[in-house]
This record gives sequence, C-alpha cells and structure tokens, in this order.
Amino acid sequence: MIQYKAPLKDIKFLMNDVYQFQQHYQQIPGGEEATPDMVDMILDAAASFSEEVLSPLYQTGDKGCRFEGGEVQTPAGFKQAYQLYVENGWQSMSTPVEYGGQGLPMSLSIAKSEMIGTANWPWGMYPGLSLGAMNTIFLHGSEAQKQTFFIPLSQGRWSGTMCLTEAQCGTDLGQVKTKAEPTADGAYAITGQKIFISSGEHDLADNIIHIVLARLPDAPEGTKGISLFIVPKFNVNEDGSLGERNLVSCGAIEEKMGIHGSSTCVMNFDGAKGFLIGPENKGLMCMFTFMNTARIGTSIQGLASAELSFQGALPYAKERRSMRSLSGSKDPDQVADTLMVHPDVRRMLLTQKAIAEGGRAMIYHAARLADLMMAAHTRGDQSLYDQYDDELGFLTPILKAFLTELGYEAANHGVQVYGGHGFIKEWGMEQIVRDAQISKLYEGTTGVQALDLLGRKMLLGKFKAYDHFAQQVKAFTRRTKRPEMKKMIRKLKRNMLAWKLYNYRIAFKASKNRDMVGAASVDYLMYAGYISMSYYWAMMAETAYQKLESGDGDAEFYTAKIQLAEFYYKRILPRAKAHASMMVRDPKSLMQIKEEHFSFLD
Amino acid sequence: MIQYKAPLKDIKFLMNDVYQFQQHYQQIPGGEEATPDMVDMILDAAASFSEEVLSPLYQTGDKGCRFEGGEVQTPAGFKQAYQLYVENGWQSMSTPVEYGGQGLPMSLSIAKSEMIGTANWPWGMYPGLSLGAMNTIFLHGSEAQKQTFFIPLSQGRWSGTMCLTEAQCGTDLGQVKTKAEPTADGAYAITGQKIFISSGEHDLADNIIHIVLARLPDAPEGTKGISLFIVPKFNVNEDGSLGERNLVSCGAIEEKMGIHGSSTCVMNFDGAKGFLIGPENKGLMCMFTFMNTARIGTSIQGLASAELSFQGALPYAKERRSMRSLSGSKDPDQVADTLMVHPDVRRMLLTQKAIAEGGRAMIYHAARLADLMMAAHTRGDQSLYDQYDDELGFLTPILKAFLTELGYEAANHGVQVYGGHGFIKEWGMEQIVRDAQISKLYEGTTGVQALDLLGRKMLLGKFKAYDHFAQQVKAFTRRTKRPEMKKMIRKLKRNMLAWKLYNYRIAFKASKNRDMVGAASVDYLMYAGYISMSYYWAMMAETAYQKLESGDGDAEFYTAKIQLAEFYYKRILPRAKAHASMMVRDPKSLMQIKEEHFSFLD
Repeated sequence: MIQYKAPLKDIKFLMNDVYQFQQHYQQIPGGEEATPDMVDMILDAAASFSEEVLSPLYQTGDKGCRFEGGEVQTPAGFKQAYQLYVENGWQSMSTPVEYGGQGLPMSLSIAKSEMIGTANWPWGMYPGLSLGAMNTIFLHGSEAQKQTFFIPLSQGRWSGTMCLTEAQCGTDLGQVKTKAEPTADGAYAITGQKIFISSGEHDLADNIIHIVLARLPDAPEGTKGISLFIVPKFNVNEDGSLGERNLVSCGAIEEKMGIHGSSTCVMNFDGAKGFLIGPENKGLMCMFTFMNTARIGTSIQGLASAELSFQGALPYAKERRSMRSLSGSKDPDQVADTLMVHPDVRRMLLTQKAIAEGGRAMIYHAARLADLMMAAHTRGDQSLYDQYDDELGFLTPILKAFLTELGYEAANHGVQVYGGHGFIKEWGMEQIVRDAQISKLYEGTTGVQALDLLGRKMLLGKFKAYDHFAQQVKAFTRRTKRPEMKKMIRKLKRNMLAWKLYNYRIAFKASKNRDMVGAASVDYLMYAGYISMSYYWAMMAETAYQKLESGDGDAEFYTAKIQLAEFYYKRILPRAKAHASMMVRDPKSLMQIKEEHFSFLD
Repeated sequence: MIQYKAPLKDIKFLMNDVYQFQQHYQQIPGGEEATPDMVDMILDAAASFSEEVLSPLYQTGDKGCRFEGGEVQTPAGFKQAYQLYVENGWQSMSTPVEYGGQGLPMSLSIAKSEMIGTANWPWGMYPGLSLGAMNTIFLHGSEAQKQTFFIPLSQGRWSGTMCLTEAQCGTDLGQVKTKAEPTADGAYAITGQKIFISSGEHDLADNIIHIVLARLPDAPEGTKGISLFIVPKFNVNEDGSLGERNLVSCGAIEEKMGIHGSSTCVMNFDGAKGFLIGPENKGLMCMFTFMNTARIGTSIQGLASAELSFQGALPYAKERRSMRSLSGSKDPDQVADTLMVHPDVRRMLLTQKAIAEGGRAMIYHAARLADLMMAAHTRGDQSLYDQYDDELGFLTPILKAFLTELGYEAANHGVQVYGGHGFIKEWGMEQIVRDAQISKLYEGTTGVQALDLLGRKMLLGKFKAYDHFAQQVKAFTRRTKRPEMKKMIRKLKRNMLAWKLYNYRIAFKASKNRDMVGAASVDYLMYAGYISMSYYWAMMAETAYQKLESGDGDAEFYTAKIQLAEFYYKRILPRAKAHASMMVRDPKSLMQIKEEHFSFLD
C-alpha cells in the first residue's frame, strides 16, 4: 500500500523562502488573515486530512463506482471523507466572506488541492469539479443565483459539474447540439445528452448543480451561438430547500482506464429546467473566464502523479536487493546491494523528484499570480487583472500539458523501479499510471494546449508573453551573482536567447505556411516547458544557497535541493535540444503523405 | 472494436525487396521448402488466423482469466482458438523434421508471431512461452527427454513455461532458493515457490511442462549453483500417456495492469518430481543459450503495440471531425474538418507508423540472423554460430528495450489521437497501453537490457559489435549513390562517426568510474536504437527508390515508404541528440545525492 506523506518542507520552502508568500499576502485583500500561524495550521490540517483520511482510500477506491437504477455509489469511505471535508469547511477556504466563505488567498487553496490531489486524485475530483461551477456562478450569475446556488456549493453541501462535451464534440464546442427552449416561467427547458461528465451523479452531496452549454432557438451556428445554463439535479424552492427532481439523469457511467473512484457520467437532459447564466450566446466566453485559474487545478495532477509515484518507489528502491554496484559492493554482507546503488534507478527516482519539485515551483508561482489576479478583480482594476491574466495565459498551457506529460512519465518510472512488481495491482504503482493518463486528455489535450500556447498566446500575441517572461528571467539572472550559480545562469541565459531566436524562425515559417503552427506546437510546448522549468530550478538553487549562507534551517535539505537542480540541468534539460531541433522543421514531412497513403491495408 | 489487418504488403516488402529472403532461404537447411508460393501461403494463412480468430478475442479477453480451486479458466474463445492453432500445426512450423516438425526457417515463424502477437498479444503468450521450454529441451535435453517432452510441446498438445522468478528475485537469479533434492529413482524433488509464471496454469493444453531453476543440495551460492529441471504438471508414463498429477500447483493468479487474458501464476512446487536438464550447476548458462533468439519474441511486442494502436487510431482520425485546418478548411461543407488535417495528429500517427515499420525492419533483420544461426548450429559450425550470436547479442537488447519503449510510446499516441475517448475501455486503445506496459518490464527491464548492451556487449566486448555493425552500414552507404538518398546517407554517416566517438568518451569515463556504465546505459541504449533504426529506414528508402525505378509494384506504396523514411529522419531521429548529450555526462549528478537525502519526509 502506498502511504502518502505531505511534503510540507518542500511546500514551505517555496511559500516562505523562494516566493516569500508572507510579504505577498500583505498586498492582497484577505491576505491579512493568512498569518504565518494560520498558514501553518491550514497546511498541517490539510496534510493530516490527506494522509490519514484520503490516502488509505486511494487504492481501495480503484474498485470504482457502482451504477444502479440511475444512482451512482462511490467507493467505500468516499462519502465519510467528503462529509469530513465539508464539516471542516475546506471547500469555502478561498470563497468570499460575503458569501459565507473564509476569504483566504487562492494560493492556499492550491496548496490544499495539491495535498488532496496527491493523496487521492479521483476523490479530489468531486470537490474539484464544484470549483468550476462555483467560479462560473460567482463571476456571471445574478445575485439571486449566487444566493441560491453559490452558497450551498461553497459550503460543499451541494456539488457542481461542467457539462460541455457531447458524443460528437469535445475540443470543438461549436458543434454542441443540446437545446435550451424558453419556458413560460422565464426559465428554459434543456434537452440533449452530455458525456464524460465528471461527478455528474454520485452519493456525496444533497444536490448537484450542472453548468450546461446549450443552444437557444435560432442561435447562430458554431461557437457564437452557445449559452450557459444552471441546471440543478433537484429543483430548489424559494426558501432554499430541495424540491422535486429535475428532468436530468445519469444514463450510464463509463468503463475507463483509471480514476475509477471518480464517476464519469453520461447525462441526459430531457427538458430539464435550467436558468440562463451570463448573456445569451456568450456561453463560451463566460465559460473561459477564469479558465486559466481552473487549469492550474488540472496541472496539479502532473505534480501529484510524480510525487505519489516517487513516494511509492523510493522505499522499494531502498529495501529491494538486486545485483551488486558496478563500482564495488555497498553491502557485502547482504545477499545483494539495494536498488539505490544502481545509477539508472537513481536516475529514474531523481527524474520523478525533479519533476515533482520543479512542477510544484511552477504551480506555486502560478498560484501567486492567481492571488494577484483575484485581488485585481476585487479591487476592480481591469488593466492589472488583464496583465496577470496574460501572464497566466502564457503559463497555463505549459503547466497543464508539460506537467501532465512529465507527471505521466514520472508515474511510469515508478512502475519501472518496481520491475515486474510494478505491473501488479497490489503495489499501487500501475494505478498511478492509469490515473495519470487522463490528465493528458481532459481539459484540453496536450495537442490543444500546445496550439493555444504557440498559435494564440505566442504568435497572435506577438510573443509579448515570452518577452514578459524573459524580463523576469533577466531580472533574476542579473541579481544572481554567486559564483556557484554561474554555470546554471549561463545556461539559462543562453537558452532564453535561443528560445527568442526560435520564436522568430517559427513565426517566419508560420507566416509562409500556417501548418507550421500545428507542426511545431507540441515540440514547442515541451521546449518551453523544459526551459521555463530550468528557471524555476535555478531560483530554487539560488534560494537554497542563500539559506545555506544564512545558516538557518536544515543544511542537508538545502544541499539536496541544489544537487537536484544540478541533476535537472544535466540530465533533464538537454531534452530541450531534441524538441528545438524538431520544432523548427518544415511541416512538409508531416503533410506530404497523402491521407490515403497512411495505410495500404485494403 | 479494433479489427487487426495483417500488413502483408509491408511484411513482403521487407522479406522480398529489402532482405531478399528468397535468396537467403536457398542458403539455409530447410530453406528449400520455403518456396515463394509456400511463403505466401503461410503468410496468408497466418494473416487469416490472426485477423479472423484472434483479433475478435483481443478486447473480450481483457475480462481476464478466472482462478478457482487451483484451476485457471482462460477467457471465452481462447481454448477454441488454441485448438485451431494446434490443428493447423502452427507450433511446429520451425521445429526439426526429425522431431515431427516442419523444419521451416525461423524467420517465417517470426513473421507468424508478429501477426499473432499484434492481433492478440495475451493469447499469443501461451504458445510463445512454450517456445522457450522447447528451445531449452531441444538444446540441452537428452534424447529421451526430447522424445518425451519436446515432441508433444512442438505439436502444441502440451504447453511450456519458464519458472525463473521468485518473490525475492527477478533479475538477480543468483538469489534463487527453490531446492532440488535427488530421489531414489534418479529424479529430483523440487520444492519452492515461483512467481510471475506466465501460462503457469491454464485450460488450453493437456499437460504443462515447467522449466524450473533450482538449487541442488550443497550447490555453490549465487549464480554458479543453479541447475535446470523439467517439471511436468502431469507425470508422463513410459508410453507417453499422462500419469498422475505432479506435486506442482498454481496458488494464485496475479491481478495486474494488463495482458489480462494471459495467466500470470504463483506456482508452488511441493516436492514435485523433476528431471535434471543439462549439467549440474550450469542452469543459468543453459537457460541463456538461445536467449537472443527468444528475445526477438519479446521485442515483437514493441512492434505489435505500435502497429495495433496505429490501426486503431487511423480510422478514428479519418472519421472524427474537430476544428478547422489552420491552412484553410479542407471540408468547408462539413461541420468541421477531420483530425487528419491537423499536423500534430499526423505527427502522432506517423510516429506510430514509423516505429512499427522501422521496428519490423529491425526484427526481420534479426530473424534472418536467427535463421543463419540455426543453420550454423545444424551444420555444427560453432565459429559461425558464435559470430551470428555476437551480432544478435548486440541487436537484441536494442530490439527488446528500444522497441518496447517506443511501442509503449506509440500506444500512448493512439490514446491521444482519440482524445477523451481514448481513456474509455470500449474503444480498446487504452488496453493496448496497459498490455504494452509489461513489455518494458519482463524478460529484463529496459535498465537491465541497457546494462547488457553497454556494459557487456560494448565495453567488455571492446566495441567489436559496434565495429561489425558500422562495417555493414559503411557497405550500405558506399553502394548507395542515388542523389535522392544523399541527405540521409550523409546524416547516417555522420551519426555513425559520432557514435564511435561517444563510445571512446564513455569507455574512458567508465575506466575511471564504473558508475559511468549504469549512468549512461539507458540513454546509450536509446541513442543506439535511434541511430540503428535510421539505418534500417535508409535501407527501406533505398529499396523503395529501386522499386520505383524498376517500375514494378505499387508506386504509391514505395513513395509513402520514402516519405515515412524522411519523416523518421526529420521528426524522430533528432531525439538521439538529447540522449547523446545526457549519456556522456559524469555520473556525479546521479551519485552525489545521499540516499537519506532523497526525501525529507520524517
């Protein structure tokens, strides 16, 4: 059994030492509540809940949900854990005080989500999906809708879903067919079928609030004719009590590769009562507000897969004895040396660890931006809001796609460390791989994220996002004068320059042939990921040197951090070369083969 | 449902055009039987059997085996398919005529195994495992043992296993504890537990012949004290009929990530009657004879995963409509363009295809060597045998580890092409990933293969295997004068030279620090894989040009082959750069972190 332990030392290193969240919290509304004591208390409590309540349900939850007579039964223990979660007010941690929330910074909720998601990703999806519904209602709902729906959602008494996908379309939401017809009472009758609805039906909460994309009669075709509706599972009476069952039901749950503890539902809307949210035909726009923040949530799965698989693999590598070290036996009295003596096993473990810790650094930086964005929203400063949104808009496709690809890789290393035992269910290592697979697919596949990064954020945005990021890196490289950091800084500077030149080359080629964008996109995203992660690793190394110099804290911890940064530069960052070499290629080798020549099987 | 179609055109392109098997068959004993007509008939029959009988059982077989009262029930249809396989004499295709076999070249059996394994890998493991037992008995058994055990195995009436792994050891077989005690009748009583025994128990054949590694009393410790035994499930009477049940039984079957149709058994030997095979204490040596040939079998799984996932993904990419081509809609009348217009989807499909076809070229080359090796064995020419064995010994770790790593990658691309649907069991795409995962683990993990390649075959072998391979490549590059091939040939020559220089660098570093071997090994293996695959792709391109020039055959097919070779050089081969850069690094970044500093969780 894998037992998760929250890496609080690593989390606090980022929050306190690298990003100095205490200073940051003093600059944002609600931040004054996040005193050092309060933050410690919250992190400790989230750690205990994740370790003690959620982690033991991870492998047992793999048995999956049961579907019977339209009802979904979640795995044993999930409901009790959810009740505890609600009772402890975890769901409302960062929701506004005026709607009964605790108003704490978003970044704290992200740290909480990391621990919950690493201990038990499938369980974490239930409260996680509610956040999407909450954001949408909070930003676009009327005051009455907030009172009726937002507050119980924020309390966790109700849960929420996002109903976007239909059988014929996922990425291409312009093809949505679900209809919304106005009814006499000012509401709408929603008719259609949605698939892949996570948490669409379950037994954890009293009501489920679906946010549904649908078309009004005579709406324009494509993405410009889509509106957003609130459709509750149970209609809600004036006093907030639950009324009769709405005409929405779960038709089936999917049999899938992993995340078996999370219900993935076919949802049938048979003239279900819905309420328009936001302006008519602007549904997609509304949906995508705060999308960047939501995507931080998904990218956590990359970090989570790497961290949990590392935690599973390390004790095995320390215990299992196989063969001798090539540089001379390390345990001559034992039947064999442990796996830890083998350089390639170390390479796999350190790769997992470098992905987890590098990914965490990227996510906590994004979390800080989310705080600032929320603060700008609260203060009504649209231009500042847009600035942070742009910055996040550059980071989030990288976070989402690069980190989930690497998290998946890391989960596979965990299996590999176990050898044949990694393939056996009992150990839990293969479950992490199966669960991680979905992270590359949902909320926009890697390919879709890559097009967003290169096509929209970079080329359409005239590389402003790159320039902004490059300025930050430059500020860091300028102020980092320590001789020990010289090599890393030089590498980082060179890579940032190379990146800039690649941008020009790709833009030039794309101006001649638009297929260049798709051809380069995924390699470009991976390239951007490796280079940007190297910046975060350099920051962590520099901070660790500072801490070592100051003499406070655990010197061994800081030394290991520096050593891991060195590992990243020597054994992971060189991969960027291959991506660079491939991303600048002409699209010809991809496009010249005729569709009918992909296969010669009659 | 995925329906497999045997890519006979590709297989015949290799056999007839690239490797000219017809000429080759004239040089080996038994090859005269393999006339063009006979070969075509066999390939066609293997294709029908794989497509019609095995392919429909692939997804249904994922429900898995049932274990009850010590018996294993294979999935519905497996037994009937096996009966058909036996009736049609498939198992004895390449076994010697004097033991009732058909004596056809090994390479033909490999083509058969490819089709069977691609259609349904878990099913194919049952007859596949028998081959290991057959090889062992054929090479090391007494005449009586061959009569008693080899013949029914070769007929497929009985099946076989290899019982190596125990709970405490897989790779490190020196730790084997199973005991063999001489009994009064000249046999041995075998006692111990073996795990991960594929086909250890099932309902397909009348008897199961286990080849078991065990220790004689007072045997030296470690690998030098291991002997090999034949342990039948049912004892065999003098007349060859089945006697009473032997004291070997299946204690459980494993719950695993994939290959659910294949039974993976815990086998308990409780004083079971066994027969020594080969000399005392030389069990490991005997076991590893013909290991290179056996490993070709496992490497086929890499090709199989890539091919099947490609065949699953292509029709979906042609049918599914999502978004518009960035270079202008290709189907303006339709709701959206198909996935085929998107360069990144093409990149994934072509990567799958390049892996499958490049892998096939590598495997069929190895198959040709296996024929020659078998011929040398038949003719009693030990020095020629050793020469081919060395050549295969260089290729097989690359085939086994590089191809299975790439096959796994290809299977993941197949899921990715399907987007969210790839995660759903119904489509079968995720099953290919789960089934492919084991290929990186069994028969020596990627890490173990990489140590074998770099440590044993390269460094201990003083790079003779590289030199031999380089000579072959040089002969090819010298005779390839076609201007269209110029770029590829230049690239290939440069890479071969670079490889040579890397060999020196690594050898030099390893002479100073033995940990260099393990540190470089996996990157070295992947590097060697990408470069050597580029040689096979260049050969295929050259042959395709020749065929185009000659004007016979399907010009579109040859053109597509050349285009795919170009794709390989432009979009896959550059990965070698990253591996080169990492493999020459000092082991320091791997070794300097103290074991106790891998984690700071209390």
